[in-house]
Amino acid sequence: MDKAQQDAMKKEAGIEAAKLVKSGMIVGLGTGSTVRFLVDELGRRKQEEGLEFTGVTTSRRTQEQAEGYGIKIVNIDDVDHIDLCIDGADEVDKNFNGIKGGGAALLWEKIVAINSDHIVWIVDASKLVDVIGKFPLPVEVIPFGAMHVIERMKERGYKPTLRLDADGKPVRTDENNYVVDLHLERIDDPAGLHEDLINMVGVVEDGLFLDMVNEVIVGDPNGPRTLVNPNKA
Amino acid sequence: MDKAQQDAMKKEAGIEAAKLVKSGMIVGLGTGSTVRFLVDELGRRKQEEGLEFTGVTTSRRTQEQAEGYGIKIVNIDDVDHIDLCIDGADEVDKNFNGIKGGGAALLWEKIVAINSDHIVWIVDASKLVDVIGKFPLPVEVIPFGAMHVIERMKERGYKPTLRLDADGKPVRTDENNYVVDLHLERIDDPAGLHEDLINMVGVVEDGLFLDMVNEVIVGDPNGPRTLVNPNKA
Repeated sequence: MDKAQQDAMKKEAGIEAAKLVKSGMIVGLGTGSTVRFLVDELGRRKQEEGLEFTGVTTSRRTQEQAEGYGIKIVNIDDVDHIDLCIDGADEVDKNFNGIKGGGAALLWEKIVAINSDHIVWIVDASKLVDVIGKFPLPVEVIPFGAMHVIERMKERGYKPTLRLDADGKPVRTDENNYVVDLHLERIDDPAGLHEDLINMVGVVEDGLFLDMVNEVIVGDPNGPRTLVNPNKA
Repeated sequence: MDKAQQDAMKKEAGIEAAKLVKSGMIVGLGTGSTVRFLVDELGRRKQEEGLEFTGVTTSRRTQEQAEGYGIKIVNIDDVDHIDLCIDGADEVDKNFNGIKGGGAALLWEKIVAINSDHIVWIVDASKLVDVIGKFPLPVEVIPFGAMHVIERMKERGYKPTLRLDADGKPVRTDENNYVVDLHLERIDDPAGLHEDLINMVGVVEDGLFLDMVNEVIVGDPNGPRTLVNPNKA
């Protein structure tokens, strides 16, 4: 699948998910290339159909894009709940376990997701996998002492690399933390891995989103299809 | 015990602990009123006795105080280990479980402690308790979504309050996070509580330091005494 085909599938998933948004809702808006198509479509619906909803964003990038369309964005702490959260994912397996954080927004994404009544992921078909882990697992780490956290991850065989920007400086998240990517190739026990990571002093959050999503909308050459998580139905 | 007596005991513990520092060591320096006395004594020993060591600090406050004495301070990520960490504690029980973070530096304190070969706490006698929890347990929380974390803590009966400064604004840690204090009165299962807190999305770290300290030096009207943790001897 080439980039143009992949983009077409991302766009298709984004447009399909935008149909779930109704006027009056509070909607969590994720981050990433697929979500960009979603926000474009929501902007179009606002301008052409008069759709009126309130957004809560998971990154400054998404906030800027949405506000460019005049979508009202509020802080997560100014709403008592979120009706629906739509976000991308870097990998999803058959048990609805996913990896997120390729865009370095995993912490805010997880905070928005955990406060949402309903979670939908939008992905192109290439994101569906048998076992997660080929995509490097992002972990958000406090800068103070980060080199020691990385050392400990190395000792455990997690193959960590500190994510750097184009200038070779550590990438900073919206909370000003570092991102460490774990090159595990396959994660056979995601719950156990999460438990280990979250208990490491200096780790803020990891990109494992386990059995959390309600539906996955998959962009496919034959048209979008929706996978429903039976544990969350 | 009045404030002057308490200060005398803190000073006594600080001076006693300063004896553990030898030239050439890398020493983690904690935060708080008892540690101030420690750093004063280390500064005196440097100037009068020529003590030369390298410090790693757990807060900007301690860093400024130490550098005022000409003590060499390096970043934790510039050393491969820490020989000795000396810090205060807000409460310590008989099982060497403690609460720290009254000074809002719990995250850096825990990061320095976890990377230290030997940990010593310095306290006045009033800090020794049968059951920890009367001192409100500090929890460092990501500002984004913090009100939802507090709501969840309320539902669990943890009696959280967001720590505010004199102007009524949320206190910010050195990592720019919030501090939420849990008014639990008594913590009968500290390990279980830690497990629950650390798994809440948005919680960075809590102030439970469980069976981590090697020795506690207690300032006492009869002179300092040292409690040795049998699990770490």
